[in-house]
Amino acid sequence: MDALRVRVEQRLSTFFADKREETLALSSESIELIDAIEDLTMRGGKRLRAIVVAAGLQAVTDDPPTDAPDEVVDAGAAIELLQSYLLIHDDWMDLDDERRGGKSVYATLRERYDDDHLGASICVLAGDLTSAYASELFARIPFPEGKRLRALDAFWRMQREVFFGQHLDLLGTGDVERTYDLKTGSYTVRGPLCIGGLLGDASDAALEALDRFAAPLGVAFQLRDELLGTFGDPDQTGKPTGNDLRAGKLTALVVHARAEVPAAERGPLETVLGRPDATDHEIAAATELLVRCGARRHVEQRLATLSAAAERALEGAPLRVEPLARIARLLIDRSY
Amino acid sequence: MDALRVRVEQRLSTFFADKREETLALSSESIELIDAIEDLTMRGGKRLRAIVVAAGLQAVTDDPPTDAPDEVVDAGAAIELLQSYLLIHDDWMDLDDERRGGKSVYATLRERYDDDHLGASICVLAGDLTSAYASELFARIPFPEGKRLRALDAFWRMQREVFFGQHLDLLGTGDVERTYDLKTGSYTVRGPLCIGGLLGDASDAALEALDRFAAPLGVAFQLRDELLGTFGDPDQTGKPTGNDLRAGKLTALVVHARAEVPAAERGPLETVLGRPDATDHEIAAATELLVRCGARRHVEQRLATLSAAAERALEGAPLRVEPLARIARLLIDRSY
Repeated sequence: MDALRVRVEQRLSTFFADKREETLALSSESIELIDAIEDLTMRGGKRLRAIVVAAGLQAVTDDPPTDAPDEVVDAGAAIELLQSYLLIHDDWMDLDDERRGGKSVYATLRERYDDDHLGASICVLAGDLTSAYASELFARIPFPEGKRLRALDAFWRMQREVFFGQHLDLLGTGDVERTYDLKTGSYTVRGPLCIGGLLGDASDAALEALDRFAAPLGVAFQLRDELLGTFGDPDQTGKPTGNDLRAGKLTALVVHARAEVPAAERGPLETVLGRPDATDHEIAAATELLVRCGARRHVEQRLATLSAAAERALEGAPLRVEPLARIARLLIDRSY
Repeated sequence: MDALRVRVEQRLSTFFADKREETLALSSESIELIDAIEDLTMRGGKRLRAIVVAAGLQAVTDDPPTDAPDEVVDAGAAIELLQSYLLIHDDWMDLDDERRGGKSVYATLRERYDDDHLGASICVLAGDLTSAYASELFARIPFPEGKRLRALDAFWRMQREVFFGQHLDLLGTGDVERTYDLKTGSYTVRGPLCIGGLLGDASDAALEALDRFAAPLGVAFQLRDELLGTFGDPDQTGKPTGNDLRAGKLTALVVHARAEVPAAERGPLETVLGRPDATDHEIAAATELLVRCGARRHVEQRLATLSAAAERALEGAPLRVEPLARIARLLIDRSY
């Protein structure tokens, strides 16, 4: 896995070096866009989605090679660029100044020009450019004969689903699991597994089984994410505890607490939601309420249910189970 | 030409009907995105870029059919979607509330949610979705064997160039012709001609000649646009005279006037630039200054020079000249 991670990093570095040269020839001023995109992209560490692509390929291949083929590396790199694009736009939409242990692209550009609208505009342009780069890298991958258009479809489906998920999020529908499925499961599990399957020239039956496995796993991944963000060890997660609460996110924890606890008793929670300046003491009180009212237990149980559903989807499926079980553990049983 | 326009409209209508169905299955709330994209796209009238694609194909084909093949219609429709995407994002960046005789997507969404940031965020999402749709429609076009990747390259090159052009515009570099070339010439002339050429399986020499013809023509097109916006008949152009001045755009007219007229004498111009509430009387005084100082004559001459350069690029080129000469007239000798 580490070897794959390193190869994805190298592919991204080469890609950015090419794009830097291409951009210099067209518009040297626009190098600041490449700088921003590269800086954010190279700060991403886990390259999880390349590992999921590799697992998709292994699951449909009888005798998979130990080293992932270059196509997996390219697909992983393209999905990393897709993620950079999504994060660049989302961080402006959510007014997030921090990302991956550094400044968000939005914060960097806003501060550079000392102008919110100009910074936001150039930030959106940087995202637009990253989107074109992601498609470009992806469309060059040689898929098996007859699978090229389906692979492109899988790529666009990821994009559409993420946009719709972000839309539901912005509208605050409170439909947490559907939002998680569209906004995160799409490009973290469903899309990458499908792309891996297509690289392995999978049958329709195998692709459908991958899809059934992916849906609950993607939601479970994001539930783990919110549990870690609220109850995890910041030293391990790299995210300050209470970030989601301070950002006012409608997590499954918050939605459950609101449904179960009368308004009069929700003070400790409601008082921190969406308040970036909430103190650690206040966050601790809200967190304690989430435990006491059963929200934590509820979300943990739901995660276990989804995890079991993913496992069940593999029963009798025309897939090699082992690489998929490994992926499920990686995505769900994590402490970071 | 009118038949082609109608076919592009029909293709877009069918595409949106499909996308509406696809979206209902994923996220019914997101139909508002489709509504916004379709409304803006169908309000565009001239479908100029499809006509340019057709001319590119005709220029490299010995005995072109009277009716454009379906691939030209699809390419034209995809470029219309690309333009919708660019306009959706640009109108928010430029804080433009009007577009194509109606409200911009940004204004519609901002007013719907009575919240500037939420409206802007959903507007950017709508643009992102349109971008994915444009790529999707384009990538399904069956190009001749060996030309598929080059066609996709042409599509991404258009996008990159427009982003860089918009970046230069936002930064206010004052490098007007380079900005026009990147921001407008790219997807109005260069890209569409190249795509038409690739549909006709053009030789490298023919593609290079199309490129040499396209570069000056694209800039000339945009110079005609600013002349019409400042001196044209609003009844014919559909744009109120003085819009560019009120928006504070750094047009070639303004850049020339600033270079030639001492600051002390530029009052009538400087007082209206970037002032949306400038009166018609003030606009008339600024326009008069642009004539008196020779800016209008300068830009008209420059347009004639570029037009001649485009014509010269065709001398000895392995291209049929007639369809290209027709396109040049359509783009440059227009009063609307």
